[in-house]
Amino acid sequence: VDTLVNDVHFYSTSSSFDIGYKSLAVSLSDIASMGGLPRWATLALTLPAIEHDWLDGFAKGFGEIANKYGISLVGGDTTQGPLSITVQVMGTVNRGQSLLRNGALPGDLVYVSGYLGAAGLAQKLLAKNREEQSIPPLCLERLNRPEPRLELGQQIRTLANACIDISDGLAADLNHILQSSDVAAQVHLSMLPICRELAEIEDKDEVWQIALATGDDYELCFTIAKDKKDELESNTKNSSDLLSCIGEITKGEGISWLDEKSDVLKLKLDPYQHF
Amino acid sequence: VDTLVNDVHFYSTSSSFDIGYKSLAVSLSDIASMGGLPRWATLALTLPAIEHDWLDGFAKGFGEIANKYGISLVGGDTTQGPLSITVQVMGTVNRGQSLLRNGALPGDLVYVSGYLGAAGLAQKLLAKNREEQSIPPLCLERLNRPEPRLELGQQIRTLANACIDISDGLAADLNHILQSSDVAAQVHLSMLPICRELAEIEDKDEVWQIALATGDDYELCFTIAKDKKDELESNTKNSSDLLSCIGEITKGEGISWLDEKSDVLKLKLDPYQHF
Repeated sequence: VDTLVNDVHFYSTSSSFDIGYKSLAVSLSDIASMGGLPRWATLALTLPAIEHDWLDGFAKGFGEIANKYGISLVGGDTTQGPLSITVQVMGTVNRGQSLLRNGALPGDLVYVSGYLGAAGLAQKLLAKNREEQSIPPLCLERLNRPEPRLELGQQIRTLANACIDISDGLAADLNHILQSSDVAAQVHLSMLPICRELAEIEDKDEVWQIALATGDDYELCFTIAKDKKDELESNTKNSSDLLSCIGEITKGEGISWLDEKSDVLKLKLDPYQHF
Repeated sequence: VDTLVNDVHFYSTSSSFDIGYKSLAVSLSDIASMGGLPRWATLALTLPAIEHDWLDGFAKGFGEIANKYGISLVGGDTTQGPLSITVQVMGTVNRGQSLLRNGALPGDLVYVSGYLGAAGLAQKLLAKNREEQSIPPLCLERLNRPEPRLELGQQIRTLANACIDISDGLAADLNHILQSSDVAAQVHLSMLPICRELAEIEDKDEVWQIALATGDDYELCFTIAKDKKDELESNTKNSSDLLSCIGEITKGEGISWLDEKSDVLKLKLDPYQHF
């Protein structure tokens, strides 16, 4: 279950189509991260007033992604109040096969899907009052219509030892795996799939901040034993989604960020603050 | 799934214990109205700030009713924003045995549980800025800690033809049954279980408004065939909850309110406005 609040998780300037799309996408992403098959959703909508055009767009956006993944909307509530949207998705997974955060083992490889920082870059530019038209379209697309990695979740379900979806940024979410599994990770900065538009920015501190700590990527980060690598590659070879091996699980705690010489680099990351 | 919004569904002066209790109670009431057995809940909490005392009270209230009915809290989300609470409850019912709104038949008797208008009276008094201490305690209790009629839902599951829980007032919610079932109802005003504190008010227009159109009763309204009456009485004879037969389903549409001479009375009801 995920709540999206106006001016926190989306901007009131966003189209209601995008808000509808994203409100279901982020909950589907959680199901993807557990290797589940999403089935049913409920929608609790709090609105300041009934605006038919807004609702029409919202319903189209919500409906588009619901149809794409075969989700049935089975219940809901509509209330008056400050704009916020709570979507719960229920899914199924074979007993004992759900992907959890607590199974990472020293020696595992760490993977991440897609590109990092695209949504974060769009968010930063919007926060600077930049017009939507001036923002790189692929970045805006990733911010407004994140695509849940459901197919990948299915492909890695029986292979991965631990998995999470990246909502608060790779640094925070990989740390959730590490803490739950009582392990550490070494991540090679040069192996991170930074989105092209972000990688071009000169201020590297800002690049790492957006790529690793701004969030809203909705990519999967997972760990698998080294001897499962071939099976992973064979399972995912027909997928159009990029998969990057970014490092390794070790004993200890926390993330060590390694530069090109494999020296540990101290990154100044300002974590996403929920409050 | 139900959302409770600050200043709409509760007052910020309410104790967080009561807000926690009520936020689960209202969703349990929906399960009761379908004859279901509640099992699991999720909680999406939007808060302006983290206040430990408030959260502690909220968790105690939510926990008290969850424990009372054996509900497991299986997921949730916490976000920053204007105070609002969305609770989804999932339950189970034997296949084909859920109580719906669309089964009422002409000739059915109409029943309602408990007393009407207690929560509504407390709400009206609070809206007039009356202090909680000056409000009849039983009315305040019904407003702040409604009790889902889960036992009754189980008892009538195989007997009733249609059922609903009263959240918007008997007039609006009985109408939901009538519209779904394509029937009408005759309701005897003298047979309505008006709560004592409300019945003492002289202005009868206000009495009917609060008893029938203010809502927040969370009692069950259901219809059963006349020949099931004995079985209903035997099923519920050990229950402490009051059950009142208030009228009958007929052909046609809408509710006819009958006075003591069985003449139709025109009531001026101002329905609960969601927007």
